[in-house]
Amino acid sequence: MGSIWKSRISLTIFGQSHGQAVGVTLDGLPAGEPVDTAALNVFLQRRAPGRFPWTTARQESDESEFLSGIINGKTCGAPVTAVIRNNNIRPADYADTKNIPRPGHADYTAYVKHGGHADISGGGHFSGRLTAPLCIAGGLCLQMLQRRGICIGSHIASIGPVKDSLFDPANIDKAVLNSLCEMDIPVLNPQAAPLMVQTIEQAKQDSDSVGGIIECAAVGLPVGLGDPMFDGMENRIASLVFAIPAVKGIEFGAGFNAAFMRGSEHNDPFYLDEKTVKTRSNNHGGILGGITSGMPLLFRAAIKPTPSIGKIQESVDLGKTESATLTVRGRHDPCIVPRAIPCMEAVMAIAIYDAILEN
Amino acid sequence: MGSIWKSRISLTIFGQSHGQAVGVTLDGLPAGEPVDTAALNVFLQRRAPGRFPWTTARQESDESEFLSGIINGKTCGAPVTAVIRNNNIRPADYADTKNIPRPGHADYTAYVKHGGHADISGGGHFSGRLTAPLCIAGGLCLQMLQRRGICIGSHIASIGPVKDSLFDPANIDKAVLNSLCEMDIPVLNPQAAPLMVQTIEQAKQDSDSVGGIIECAAVGLPVGLGDPMFDGMENRIASLVFAIPAVKGIEFGAGFNAAFMRGSEHNDPFYLDEKTVKTRSNNHGGILGGITSGMPLLFRAAIKPTPSIGKIQESVDLGKTESATLTVRGRHDPCIVPRAIPCMEAVMAIAIYDAILEN
Amino acid sequence: MGSIWKSRISLTIFGQSHGQAVGVTLDGLPAGEPVDTAALNVFLQRRAPGRFPWTTARQESDESEFLSGIINGKTCGAPVTAVIRNNNIRPADYADTKNIPRPGHADYTAYVKHGGHADISGGGHFSGRLTAPLCIAGGLCLQMLQRRGICIGSHIASIGPVKDSLFDPANIDKAVLNSLCEMDIPVLNPQAAPLMVQTIEQAKQDSDSVGGIIECAAVGLPVGLGDPMFDGMENRIASLVFAIPAVKGIEFGAGFNAAFMRGSEHNDPFYLDEKTVKTRSNNHGGILGGITSGMPLLFRAAIKPTPSIGKIQESVDLGKTESATLTVRGRHDPCIVPRAIPCMEAVMAIAIYDAILEN
Amino acid sequence: MGSIWKSRISLTIFGQSHGQAVGVTLDGLPAGEPVDTAALNVFLQRRAPGRFPWTTARQESDESEFLSGIINGKTCGAPVTAVIRNNNIRPADYADTKNIPRPGHADYTAYVKHGGHADISGGGHFSGRLTAPLCIAGGLCLQMLQRRGICIGSHIASIGPVKDSLFDPANIDKAVLNSLCEMDIPVLNPQAAPLMVQTIEQAKQDSDSVGGIIECAAVGLPVGLGDPMFDGMENRIASLVFAIPAVKGIEFGAGFNAAFMRGSEHNDPFYLDEKTVKTRSNNHGGILGGITSGMPLLFRAAIKPTPSIGKIQESVDLGKTESATLTVRGRHDPCIVPRAIPCMEAVMAIAIYDAILEN
Repeated sequence: MGSIWKSRISLTIFGQSHGQAVGVTLDGLPAGEPVDTAALNVFLQRRAPGRFPWTTARQESDESEFLSGIINGKTCGAPVTAVIRNNNIRPADYADTKNIPRPGHADYTAYVKHGGHADISGGGHFSGRLTAPLCIAGGLCLQMLQRRGICIGSHIASIGPVKDSLFDPANIDKAVLNSLCEMDIPVLNPQAAPLMVQTIEQAKQDSDSVGGIIECAAVGLPVGLGDPMFDGMENRIASLVFAIPAVKGIEFGAGFNAAFMRGSEHNDPFYLDEKTVKTRSNNHGGILGGITSGMPLLFRAAIKPTPSIGKIQESVDLGKTESATLTVRGRHDPCIVPRAIPCMEAVMAIAIYDAILEN
Repeated sequence: MGSIWKSRISLTIFGQSHGQAVGVTLDGLPAGEPVDTAALNVFLQRRAPGRFPWTTARQESDESEFLSGIINGKTCGAPVTAVIRNNNIRPADYADTKNIPRPGHADYTAYVKHGGHADISGGGHFSGRLTAPLCIAGGLCLQMLQRRGICIGSHIASIGPVKDSLFDPANIDKAVLNSLCEMDIPVLNPQAAPLMVQTIEQAKQDSDSVGGIIECAAVGLPVGLGDPMFDGMENRIASLVFAIPAVKGIEFGAGFNAAFMRGSEHNDPFYLDEKTVKTRSNNHGGILGGITSGMPLLFRAAIKPTPSIGKIQESVDLGKTESATLTVRGRHDPCIVPRAIPCMEAVMAIAIYDAILEN
Repeated sequence: MGSIWKSRISLTIFGQSHGQAVGVTLDGLPAGEPVDTAALNVFLQRRAPGRFPWTTARQESDESEFLSGIINGKTCGAPVTAVIRNNNIRPADYADTKNIPRPGHADYTAYVKHGGHADISGGGHFSGRLTAPLCIAGGLCLQMLQRRGICIGSHIASIGPVKDSLFDPANIDKAVLNSLCEMDIPVLNPQAAPLMVQTIEQAKQDSDSVGGIIECAAVGLPVGLGDPMFDGMENRIASLVFAIPAVKGIEFGAGFNAAFMRGSEHNDPFYLDEKTVKTRSNNHGGILGGITSGMPLLFRAAIKPTPSIGKIQESVDLGKTESATLTVRGRHDPCIVPRAIPCMEAVMAIAIYDAILEN
Repeated sequence: MGSIWKSRISLTIFGQSHGQAVGVTLDGLPAGEPVDTAALNVFLQRRAPGRFPWTTARQESDESEFLSGIINGKTCGAPVTAVIRNNNIRPADYADTKNIPRPGHADYTAYVKHGGHADISGGGHFSGRLTAPLCIAGGLCLQMLQRRGICIGSHIASIGPVKDSLFDPANIDKAVLNSLCEMDIPVLNPQAAPLMVQTIEQAKQDSDSVGGIIECAAVGLPVGLGDPMFDGMENRIASLVFAIPAVKGIEFGAGFNAAFMRGSEHNDPFYLDEKTVKTRSNNHGGILGGITSGMPLLFRAAIKPTPSIGKIQESVDLGKTESATLTVRGRHDPCIVPRAIPCMEAVMAIAIYDAILEN
């Protein structure tokens, strides 16, 4: 289990990194919603490999084929299924280390969980490649939201030690969010981008990798999405975001900084802007009691450094139960943060669109 | 919706802060498991009000009555339901500010969501009081885990600016975890406790409040709990932890710090300890690919400062659609971090026990 | 597991026949819906014991106490929980046959499932008494439906060999449905009622029991409720109806008779009644492709004869693994069909109201 | 929604009758289970069109391609996805009657539900063709059960007025079940088969159709599968069986006949066969309190006559809101009962295997 997320809409994600295909079924979309496949592809290209000089040498066109659910460019009410064929697979890269788990990967836990039967080539079902179908689902939801005036965008808050500015959480501009979507290295402070690139390139040169933080925001939300307790917007987003490999933490609004504030500082005063209730600050990140307040919804996610690195690493041979070392082969990125951005937006879009349909 | 968490076991939580009762139904527990109500009460008392000089003046004995599911001190396979009567309710405290939402609370979003019909006395169903039934459920699961050699404990990583040491994540001792459960202000560094108390008392004196961070760990886990993607241990824990009001973020293992590490530093090398596969460090926090590795499972959660403070605050009158100010009445804590600790352990216990039953 | 039904609304049912209480939590009701507790009690009395001379001698007032979710006579958006205390319990009646399962009951399967830890007094959690909380949930949903112009009613299609007329499925009158709700032995053909009573009394006199068939209909439905495949209205209703002990089968519209018809006879021709699309006949029972057609929704459920009978029966002693006989003590009905009627209406109401909220 | 069935294992079914493909994702299968694709194809051929002279002229090879979840002939723990391409599609057959719903089909309800955007060609997502992926899922589960000594088989209890004998429910032989799987027209009484064929051929000649009843049994079950209330084996099977278009009713064990029995006749006495607890009769159909008793699990399902018939039928033009007539084109079977048999076995297998994994 684990590959189905079921709410008002539901996602079923399937495939392995070096299997025949990866894909997704999205059930519960209303009928009659136009699907712009060109716009979807633009969105998917932001996640696809090959966009940066440093990304994995694996060549995948990542073209999605829709098998069901769309008639004449519109949803027809039946489940939408899309698949992406894996073209450039090289399972042999993983053959000689089948029993030697790569540190930081799911190889070991999958081996134990599945009694040695797991497909571990390139991480199998645990691979970051499974975020491609997640982005198909999210990209479709994004289009639904855009038609409802809801806009989602993200920037890289940090890569390694290089930090960008953060959003001013009570004042996030749609135009800024949209322009971020067009940047290769989306940042608020333009000077941060080249330093981030340099950090990644240096890591690659050192046969190493770096992580980072992504800040993702949604504006234009109605008040009242989400539910108390286990179905708050935080719960929903978190239940999706940890499906993205490498995410180690998530925080909403002021997040961990809230722990260092006093109540008088953290509480966001309500005021009237024309007839609309707003808050002067937005430490609550657009969610109160699990429910959207109408203020920008805001989260940050921590991305660990890519575990696949070129250095020799210590491990164990699970077959022989003895110590071993390994050098990771296969093809990989020294930093997956830029490619993780559309994944964050996908997660945000799915959670919000689902909550809208529920309301 | 929102008050049901359904997996192999399921929780249904009900009640409002100033209603007749709060309670929980826990379905899916195996039959024949002994229930130690005395031990459960000790656990519940760690969350109950009245343990500290600064906590809310509301007097609640928090005695739970079991309505079903337990026969002769053992589970019988039927759903376990427990209720806690609310004795010391004062809904009148909230009457004059019914239309003036308290900043930082769910009053406003609940008002809009429920069209003005929400029970907002003391936060209604959004109140921290609903963590009492959560702790009943978690306390029961803790007992099941203890019999399986799994131990859970937590300490306060920070309150306001005062920080405790952190766990050495690869070496967490059961005895230490158990001793933390007996401290009023559980810390690793004994010097931190009085400074934390002082910080809370100062906040109270200032009619203000403070937040903090809790670090929670589980040891003795088998390898292989949890599933990939949407049912990883992180997803499961996060889907529960955000049911606790005031949680603003969660991180596992190295968490947000992982974003600043290089892969060579963050990857945890595997080695053999006797015949057991372990990792030398534990930046992964006991979870790889959503699945437990057998190393200590570790998360930190950020708790915002209590939104109920004694100062005058800016708000709006939702009935008249005009600006307003309010002073929060009712009874409240200047810091809920110490009382939130058993809630974290409850969440950890539920998620782990559920995953064990699923395996 | 098993005691939670989760859809747009959700039910959690708890309690055992001879435990402290039985009860239900109903989550997902919209806020602001009036709750008429007097009308609810009238509905519950139709299921309560003691209405007929032949019913169980167990005296239970079946008064429900609401613990949460209702403020000033209206739902407040929080989960609604109601409990019914068990007052007249006699677990001792079941002590000497603890290891000798009663034929036709769940004693044996519960014993094996729960390793001998099940509460088997009066059937424990498997008892028909658990339909009381089901009726609370259904009774609340009925009120919501009535305000939307939807009317539900049932009659006894047969008890033992005595048959009533059946509904004319394309022409079911609201007034008739309402009048059925007021009859002790609701039938369409008034001559059937005394014969049914006689059949039940004869069975009682013979220390035996009889079963029957209930036909339940809903009118005033919108077109478009329900979903294809696993969430059709048939699937939903069936997933609820088999929670009622003693139900052995369910059929919709022409049901099993459809198997003996030709397509030209079974197909219901569409026509226009003013501007409304209707069907001339209603063999489809108001559901096409899982989705309501606007025609009366109609099902019949088969109720087996009460397994508790006064005769000596053959069984086995599970403790000694040897043959045994038993005579069922405890108190029971020679026919539970009349008391099962509100349960059918409850199920119908829950399924329909849930589907309305989903749409 | 509706196309996902989620329990310990889960099914996601997608596709439309005249779309690119139909398919299924099955999540939750244990890793390391061998998959015999040849045996699966034999099973699928029992459902495939073209096996009988009277079946639809639509030619589909129904070859399934596995996209994920199987490595070296074994499940690997990742979701199993299989697709069947639609080769012989003729959506044009349905163009001129797009607005004129076929009686007995989901055309009208789908039209209203999806605001005219539904894909109605050949029934779209509501088509019987969607039972092909259901059979892939069920066929896989059948293989798992066979390795555990559980055997499933079915026969045609009736087609039109022609009836077969019924199973002797307390004595069902594995060899008989297996031999039924090899018959084109599986019956217990060999004289029934030619009469059934004649009935179907006569219906075809009359441009009409006939329905029937299927009886399906499973033997070799452990005691203790299933749960009380909403997750009993009846609820689970019913929630799946009504996903098969044309099913109008389901009954377990004595079913509707139970309504005409007395308790003393219907109760199945327990006895010891060696050390095994059995019942002398099997009116309970292998399920007591929702839980398997170890006796044969038995259900019968009513299949309505194919709604697609060659006769002129009355309908309405939904675009013009006026009366209309239609003659159904497209290709169809005068009786789908024989092809529905593997669907029943699929449903039985999924429900049982799921319950086994849960236990």
